[in-house]
Amino acid sequence: MKRRIHNILTVSKKSGDLSWYFDVFIITLIILNVIAIVLESIEPLRQQFQTHFDYFELFSVIVFTVEYILRIWTANLIPEFKKPIAGNLKYALTPLAIIDLLAFLPFYLPFVGVDLRLLRMLRIFRIFRLFKIARYIEALSFITRVFKKKKEELVISLIFTVFLLLIASTLMYYVENESQPENFSSIPETMWWGIATLTTVGYGDIYPVTPLGRFLGGVIAIIGIGLFALPSGILASGFSDEISRRKLQDDYCSTCGQTIKKEQNEI
Amino acid sequence: MKRRIHNILTVSKKSGDLSWYFDVFIITLIILNVIAIVLESIEPLRQQFQTHFDYFELFSVIVFTVEYILRIWTANLIPEFKKPIAGNLKYALTPLAIIDLLAFLPFYLPFVGVDLRLLRMLRIFRIFRLFKIARYIEALSFITRVFKKKKEELVISLIFTVFLLLIASTLMYYVENESQPENFSSIPETMWWGIATLTTVGYGDIYPVTPLGRFLGGVIAIIGIGLFALPSGILASGFSDEISRRKLQDDYCSTCGQTIKKEQNEI
Amino acid sequence: MKRRIHNILTVSKKSGDLSWYFDVFIITLIILNVIAIVLESIEPLRQQFQTHFDYFELFSVIVFTVEYILRIWTANLIPEFKKPIAGNLKYALTPLAIIDLLAFLPFYLPFVGVDLRLLRMLRIFRIFRLFKIARYIEALSFITRVFKKKKEELVISLIFTVFLLLIASTLMYYVENESQPENFSSIPETMWWGIATLTTVGYGDIYPVTPLGRFLGGVIAIIGIGLFALPSGILASGFSDEISRRKLQDDYCSTCGQTIKKEQNEI
Amino acid sequence: MKRRIHNILTVSKKSGDLSWYFDVFIITLIILNVIAIVLESIEPLRQQFQTHFDYFELFSVIVFTVEYILRIWTANLIPEFKKPIAGNLKYALTPLAIIDLLAFLPFYLPFVGVDLRLLRMLRIFRIFRLFKIARYIEALSFITRVFKKKKEELVISLIFTVFLLLIASTLMYYVENESQPENFSSIPETMWWGIATLTTVGYGDIYPVTPLGRFLGGVIAIIGIGLFALPSGILASGFSDEISRRKLQDDYCSTCGQTIKKEQNEI
Repeated sequence: MKRRIHNILTVSKKSGDLSWYFDVFIITLIILNVIAIVLESIEPLRQQFQTHFDYFELFSVIVFTVEYILRIWTANLIPEFKKPIAGNLKYALTPLAIIDLLAFLPFYLPFVGVDLRLLRMLRIFRIFRLFKIARYIEALSFITRVFKKKKEELVISLIFTVFLLLIASTLMYYVENESQPENFSSIPETMWWGIATLTTVGYGDIYPVTPLGRFLGGVIAIIGIGLFALPSGILASGFSDEISRRKLQDDYCSTCGQTIKKEQNEI
Repeated sequence: MKRRIHNILTVSKKSGDLSWYFDVFIITLIILNVIAIVLESIEPLRQQFQTHFDYFELFSVIVFTVEYILRIWTANLIPEFKKPIAGNLKYALTPLAIIDLLAFLPFYLPFVGVDLRLLRMLRIFRIFRLFKIARYIEALSFITRVFKKKKEELVISLIFTVFLLLIASTLMYYVENESQPENFSSIPETMWWGIATLTTVGYGDIYPVTPLGRFLGGVIAIIGIGLFALPSGILASGFSDEISRRKLQDDYCSTCGQTIKKEQNEI
Repeated sequence: MKRRIHNILTVSKKSGDLSWYFDVFIITLIILNVIAIVLESIEPLRQQFQTHFDYFELFSVIVFTVEYILRIWTANLIPEFKKPIAGNLKYALTPLAIIDLLAFLPFYLPFVGVDLRLLRMLRIFRIFRLFKIARYIEALSFITRVFKKKKEELVISLIFTVFLLLIASTLMYYVENESQPENFSSIPETMWWGIATLTTVGYGDIYPVTPLGRFLGGVIAIIGIGLFALPSGILASGFSDEISRRKLQDDYCSTCGQTIKKEQNEI
Repeated sequence: MKRRIHNILTVSKKSGDLSWYFDVFIITLIILNVIAIVLESIEPLRQQFQTHFDYFELFSVIVFTVEYILRIWTANLIPEFKKPIAGNLKYALTPLAIIDLLAFLPFYLPFVGVDLRLLRMLRIFRIFRLFKIARYIEALSFITRVFKKKKEELVISLIFTVFLLLIASTLMYYVENESQPENFSSIPETMWWGIATLTTVGYGDIYPVTPLGRFLGGVIAIIGIGLFALPSGILASGFSDEISRRKLQDDYCSTCGQTIKKEQNEI
């Protein structure tokens, strides 16, 4: 019985069996939830279909709760988590299990007496239902792998980014504060200008107006953009490396054994 | 007779013969149509030369209609579509034939009693006349090839893009909605902010103003831009691969046979 | 005499001789001219030092005129232009000679009775004095070489760019024209939006406001930016190829002969 | 005694000894200083905790002064600076020592009778305390190495950048000055538009409005962005070269000797 439920819960590899229908059901429910979240944010729709949204929410939360309980219960059947209680707890702390939990937990908070105003904030957790789909979409585990491989490069360039943002914003704050005390009111406030400039978004809500500030802003833009574009370049090269590695595996299937062996050493 | 018309309609390889003059005539007509569309959009010009534009439109539609009918009629002479009626229909469903059809069809709609207000909308189809030129410009089939080759990468990065846009917009909606109910009125509305930020366009018509919203916006910008730049990097590398492959073919013409053979296996 | 002047005019390879001093003089004069153009554009400075600017202009024009005449006169000493009159004329049509001419010619126009209002426009030609420096800065001939090498790629991607801009602007014009008749008043006007969006500059002076327009704008931004970034990627790769090729030459000087030979075949 | 202090001052390689504790202390102090600078810029916080900020400033300046004096005094123990006085002076002129000096020097200026208004300006020097951390973060010496390696490429592309900015701004000034005399009031002012456009930041505070100005702006944007993105591409490739070189060293540690030898020749 427990094993059968476990088999149904795990992602199916061949279409048509019970496990596959379960996957399709959960994926459909997740997508419908995302659509519901988006539609509910539109005021007129919310007012007109409030009860429909509420019933759908209730239904989703029940399904996700049952799914979560069954997943925790059957976790022992995965070799890695086979210890009776410790294994279940260990499984409950994996990223995917935490996402599963956060996807429905906030719904129960009003029953344990949480302030209604806080509840509004908790609706933000419903976005975790979107993350639940990560289990089924291979492409999302792909980007995770790219991030892991390029971790070192990304950390180094993130240090630069923070360093540069801090220097640029501090300098600009000292230069522009006097003539625009409301826009460049503090260094954290000026960082908003810094991010908008260094990422080249440039909303135009805040920008230097003094000649010195503009000169400084120009120099920062020319120098800084190159450094801010580094993570983007790193991700792109990691992405294409990963793609070509995967293609290699798919193409030369006769030598699959060796390639996979090599890959396992790499990871 | 049918064969002769077919030869005239197909793109000529040597200049000076009848087929070549026909190509030049159609290309000129397409370019004149594009110029007419652009000029007609300028209010004073439209009012002054309305009748000229109308006569030119009539002339163009007649030519394109005749061209389309002849193309469909002579399609049987292409080996792929040689069956009498089924072949003609099959040809009519190729992308280039559909473009040819859409380039003149809307003109006939008023005769079958279509609402005049809808007609205004139908003028948008005139842009398909520009696509007709795709048959003659080799460079446009080039980009199609790049897109095909990099399809997998582009699809993966498009999934990320949509995923990221959805999460960024949902989070920002919950954070900013209360203080800017008119700008961040719903999640779809907030996506407009999301696209403007993640593509770094940054029109500045809508941006976060709360400290939490700005912090979130900054983190989204720094992380997200890297992921949004992926398709651009993929296209650039696909483009340069394709260019170098083509140059290789042109340069070593003596080994053409082998290279082409290899290429055919690739496609 | 003629040969001596010619030697002085050509770019010197060793510092300290007369030709080298002449180069330094001309470069200094060009830079001073650029500084003068920039300073003269500042209203208070122009009013205060008008006569100084005028005298400096007169001096510069005389020097550049004499330099130009001498360059044309001595052109016969270059093997390529050795024919008495035809050679001189041929030299006068080289890009550098045309730049030299345009750098001072507009100054003489008032003497042949040109309208004073037109003269204001002609001041724009003074920027050609900056281009005169191209003869002395090797780095600028470097970029010219990169452009030449990547000509084919740049032309293809320019065709895409124009094509995409035309389609995006036409579609957006039909969609937004009704609700924003003053901003999206015509297709050429809408192209200003198209360029600002596809280059990700996004000034924010003009943007879609209707839901359909925003949806279309989002799709155009995501798809189009990749294609608009192509020329930038092409230039970057051409630039790095050229740099590495030059470094190769400098490093392995013992095999210089072969490398240069190979290069000459390439150019 | 002197040697012991020197050992404490130099960056420790193994955790737990006195030198290591000193490093942690200085790094903590630097980070606290940066936090203090940021917090002090927030008006309400400054007013409430003014005395705390002042005491912390006093303490930091004393520590940094003592640290600086000891570093100069013990510099002789570094082989490169072993000459008694000349060595100390030479050390004092290294970038890191100058940063150390500027991090505390402005604090003493009021004692030597500097104008109070100038003092406000001097607070900007406190940002040098952030640079002091460069000694401890290996990642920052990493980027310095990348900049050094790509110096030639960066200088060439900087020349283009300045050249292009100058031409674009001069042309735009002549075209737009008449219709927007306050925004495009002079060439230096127009350069602010040039930088915002060519870096694609596009604040939207200043943009062309005449048809000719928009046409020129569009052409400049399309051509110029490619050239302005060059430094970013150069940095990215230099960054990834350096990373892969370092990984190579870490991985094949058995052949370390040879790799390091090769590297030393390179530097």
